[in-house]
Amino acid sequence: MYRRAERNFQRGMWQLWLILPKYTQWDLLVTMADPWQECMDYAVILARKAGEIIREALKEEIAVMVKSSPADLVTVTDQKVENMIISSIKEKYPSHSFIGEESVAAGAGSTLTDNPTWIIDPIDGTTNFVHRFPFVAVSIGFVVNKKIEFGVVFSCVEDKMYTARKGKGAFCNGQKIHVSQLQDITKALIVTELGSSREPEVLKTVLSNMQRLLSIPIHGIRAVGTAAVNMCLVATGGADAYYEMGIHCWDMAGAGIIITEAGGVLLDISGGPFDLMSRRIIAANSQVLAERIAKELQIIPLQRDDAAN
Amino acid sequence: MYRRAERNFQRGMWQLWLILPKYTQWDLLVTMADPWQECMDYAVILARKAGEIIREALKEEIAVMVKSSPADLVTVTDQKVENMIISSIKEKYPSHSFIGEESVAAGAGSTLTDNPTWIIDPIDGTTNFVHRFPFVAVSIGFVVNKKIEFGVVFSCVEDKMYTARKGKGAFCNGQKIHVSQLQDITKALIVTELGSSREPEVLKTVLSNMQRLLSIPIHGIRAVGTAAVNMCLVATGGADAYYEMGIHCWDMAGAGIIITEAGGVLLDISGGPFDLMSRRIIAANSQVLAERIAKELQIIPLQRDDAAN
Repeated sequence: MYRRAERNFQRGMWQLWLILPKYTQWDLLVTMADPWQECMDYAVILARKAGEIIREALKEEIAVMVKSSPADLVTVTDQKVENMIISSIKEKYPSHSFIGEESVAAGAGSTLTDNPTWIIDPIDGTTNFVHRFPFVAVSIGFVVNKKIEFGVVFSCVEDKMYTARKGKGAFCNGQKIHVSQLQDITKALIVTELGSSREPEVLKTVLSNMQRLLSIPIHGIRAVGTAAVNMCLVATGGADAYYEMGIHCWDMAGAGIIITEAGGVLLDISGGPFDLMSRRIIAANSQVLAERIAKELQIIPLQRDDAAN
Repeated sequence: MYRRAERNFQRGMWQLWLILPKYTQWDLLVTMADPWQECMDYAVILARKAGEIIREALKEEIAVMVKSSPADLVTVTDQKVENMIISSIKEKYPSHSFIGEESVAAGAGSTLTDNPTWIIDPIDGTTNFVHRFPFVAVSIGFVVNKKIEFGVVFSCVEDKMYTARKGKGAFCNGQKIHVSQLQDITKALIVTELGSSREPEVLKTVLSNMQRLLSIPIHGIRAVGTAAVNMCLVATGGADAYYEMGIHCWDMAGAGIIITEAGGVLLDISGGPFDLMSRRIIAANSQVLAERIAKELQIIPLQRDDAAN
């Protein structure tokens, strides 16, 4: 009796499957094979929509507000873009969690749990945005069980969509990207930033770290003003490594997996394992280069992203 | 008798003019109105051709040679592009003079005379080129009686053609560009470079100049790795000012007039008048901002471009 019921159930399922349209069958197969692929596709759609809002805003007057320092800026567009992204995701995935730059600035928590969590920087490079310096990115990282599952970084003025899904490689506008092969630090091109802190002690360490690296010597240092784009430049092989202290999980989550899926590595500034909530990162083409850079860097004391919670 | 001859001559000229094809009439009018417009049109053609050579070379293996320091690089493509540009111009304008980065490196003089002189950087951003960091420019400046008449900067990976003819405005891909309006240094975004010198004293001054500016405070510092593109970013209003010491006339001649035609100013690092052969520059959106920056900068002693001649 039980056997017959089971057989009938299976037959019914199969008949149901056969009457589904081809694209629904395909979607179901993809979802069964990779539960987060649908979320990633949605992240790409949202990043592109966010990019449109940002590009429109660049044509208008931009009103600027100050956050933690005279060089830490925010605009209504940052807030508008983040609200659009978070409310869209909430509607589709009500059980998911969020860490967004502007929500945290407005008092929301930033503890990372095991729940599927979207980590969002609506405008990475707000100072660039304010000045219309042409590197402004929307960054979306998706973390489950504290591991990054996918990342989407849309450099919207350049119109470059960087994406990476765990285990499936990294792409820029659909073209596979790779880190560089270089391992000799004396020939390295490094990206980093002078940062938004204007505290004399912090500035001194930022600049002395640059001096130590340049004196090795290295080929040079570049700074385009957004952590996410800097990391994506490493992912394409255009630069060999990126490091920075004082940034946040929303600056790193999206681009972090783009680096590793492009063949690169993430390390802590100390040379230890990378920690998304630590506010510091070395993202390099190789372990060798990352460790060599770690050796030169003096550490700036920072409060963790999850410290206040 | 004389009157009749004159009348006949004028009539003959007029009849000659009328039998010329329309486009030849137009070319003649343009040349009569602006003797250097034809040279500028040719510079744009050559810059685009140079850009094609560079983009092709970016697809191949790049062999690197070292010049004045481990961070001062040159490739066969620099030399190939410069040879193409100079030989093309020589054929068309045999009486003109040249100052080209690679010709000077090979021992040619770099004295600026009153003769029409083409000042050429075949690849501004050779380190970027070597690393495929996506900012690489062909720079052509044209100087007559020691004054820049026009400038062409082709940022060939971005596909941005910047042009300016004295008195006729500055353009990017045919769109008129303008410097920013900002005059308050505490809100300025500045572009500069860490440079290719690895001498400890020079590095120390480069970094302490950054520290002084950041401490004013300013909004930030960016560095994309080419003087010409940095200056063009100021010309578009994307950054408010650029300064650097240790660069050469071929880094500044093309973009210099793009800055002034976009409404900006060129000053010496000391705050005095700009000198194309001095190897130092402040290029800003305004006199006010340029002078304010000059106040902060410690000067690095440098041999002039025309010193050895």
